[in-house]
Amino acid sequence: MDIVFIGAGNLATNLSHALHEAGHKIVQIYSRTEASAKALADDFGCPFTNNEDQIVVGPYIYIICVTDSALAEVAQKVIKGREDCLFVHTAGSMQMDVLPSKRRGVFYPMQTFSKARLVNFTDIPVFVEASENKDADTLLSLAKTISEKVYELSSADRQYLHLAAVFCCNFANHCYTLSEEILGQHGIPFEVMNSLIDETAAKVHNISPSQAQTGPAARKDENVIRKHLQLLDDNPRLQTIYDIMTKSIAHD
Amino acid sequence: MDIVFIGAGNLATNLSHALHEAGHKIVQIYSRTEASAKALADDFGCPFTNNEDQIVVGPYIYIICVTDSALAEVAQKVIKGREDCLFVHTAGSMQMDVLPSKRRGVFYPMQTFSKARLVNFTDIPVFVEASENKDADTLLSLAKTISEKVYELSSADRQYLHLAAVFCCNFANHCYTLSEEILGQHGIPFEVMNSLIDETAAKVHNISPSQAQTGPAARKDENVIRKHLQLLDDNPRLQTIYDIMTKSIAHD
Repeated sequence: MDIVFIGAGNLATNLSHALHEAGHKIVQIYSRTEASAKALADDFGCPFTNNEDQIVVGPYIYIICVTDSALAEVAQKVIKGREDCLFVHTAGSMQMDVLPSKRRGVFYPMQTFSKARLVNFTDIPVFVEASENKDADTLLSLAKTISEKVYELSSADRQYLHLAAVFCCNFANHCYTLSEEILGQHGIPFEVMNSLIDETAAKVHNISPSQAQTGPAARKDENVIRKHLQLLDDNPRLQTIYDIMTKSIAHD
Repeated sequence: MDIVFIGAGNLATNLSHALHEAGHKIVQIYSRTEASAKALADDFGCPFTNNEDQIVVGPYIYIICVTDSALAEVAQKVIKGREDCLFVHTAGSMQMDVLPSKRRGVFYPMQTFSKARLVNFTDIPVFVEASENKDADTLLSLAKTISEKVYELSSADRQYLHLAAVFCCNFANHCYTLSEEILGQHGIPFEVMNSLIDETAAKVHNISPSQAQTGPAARKDENVIRKHLQLLDDNPRLQTIYDIMTKSIAHD
């Protein structure tokens, strides 16, 4: 299939490479930042632009990969004059209807992306949705060329999926950050946590996380909990998080 | 080396198997629950007992693997009459001095254990400490037969290590649980999160977690944050956690 990318950030970089490797043609890259558009277009030897008037018009799939907060504004600009084309966005948290084109859809690969680290899409679930059945089929086919886990999901349910992903990914990562903060204050390198982090993640492939829960809160071990709260006396932010997470675990 | 196990729970099961496979001799298993002592002793064809008077006395390393809250009481009982033997405990959160023996130490493999899932100790960091230098050397040698990551760490610093592990493991796992709770309410299977969880864990082997942070809180995307908080209107417990984690991420 022939694809135009709107955006050249982390996700656009990862997704365009995966689609290109799966044999699709990257027709053009648009980014508000010309240097970003050029850098990504250079990977494919394709045209680029930072001028929305110069975005090609044709029977392409236009994939908009911009930050959620910029999506509505960018979509408005790039769709103008191309209302009959199929535009899709990649934002887990946004409704499909944020796109003002007649044919619109969502193509949401649920993963955490960095430009520096190209990921393998095979195991990344992709959630798709489209305003027209024919386009839904096209997007399902496109997704299946890069991933083995493709689901059709409505905007209404996808917002809960995205919320759940914030807990699993963003908040779990913040737990790592808080851990690093504590270790740093005592000269212990964060890398000692690697195997514990990996095992905690691996466990829940086979066991429900509520059943996999261990630690002082799961054991309701008041002595250890009290001591930990005391150790955090000089750090009210971490102390509050410790207290609330512990109470929430004990609630289960 | 010759080892007596006090306890037959998750950690005792995992650790005794790892030490046995590394060529050490399991001399005896003691547990307050006779059936547990027998079940584990059967794996090695060694004696077991649930009577502390029948614990063997000799030049062994006595490894006490019981829950943190039971440690002081169990240690008191099993050390009585064996004060000259080397007793060590395995509790990350407990001081070495909770053991009333003359020769005492700590042997803390930092990992989350389940009886059902025997883990490979090679990558598990083991933190050791002893009241006598000679015993510290013995414990370092013992640890090195099962792990490539062995550290000597004082009780004072180990309590912060354990606290940091609660964040990295127990609280990260609870984030998975909350995610599962949200997905379950919308009929989405938790397994769609597997690759996101794995990538989130894998990332911090190479990048500091504070730098790896993504998501609405890291982007300070108020629209998405507000919408997520609304989605949690019927669940004040999750709403509070979302709010506090988001503010803590934005603080970084």
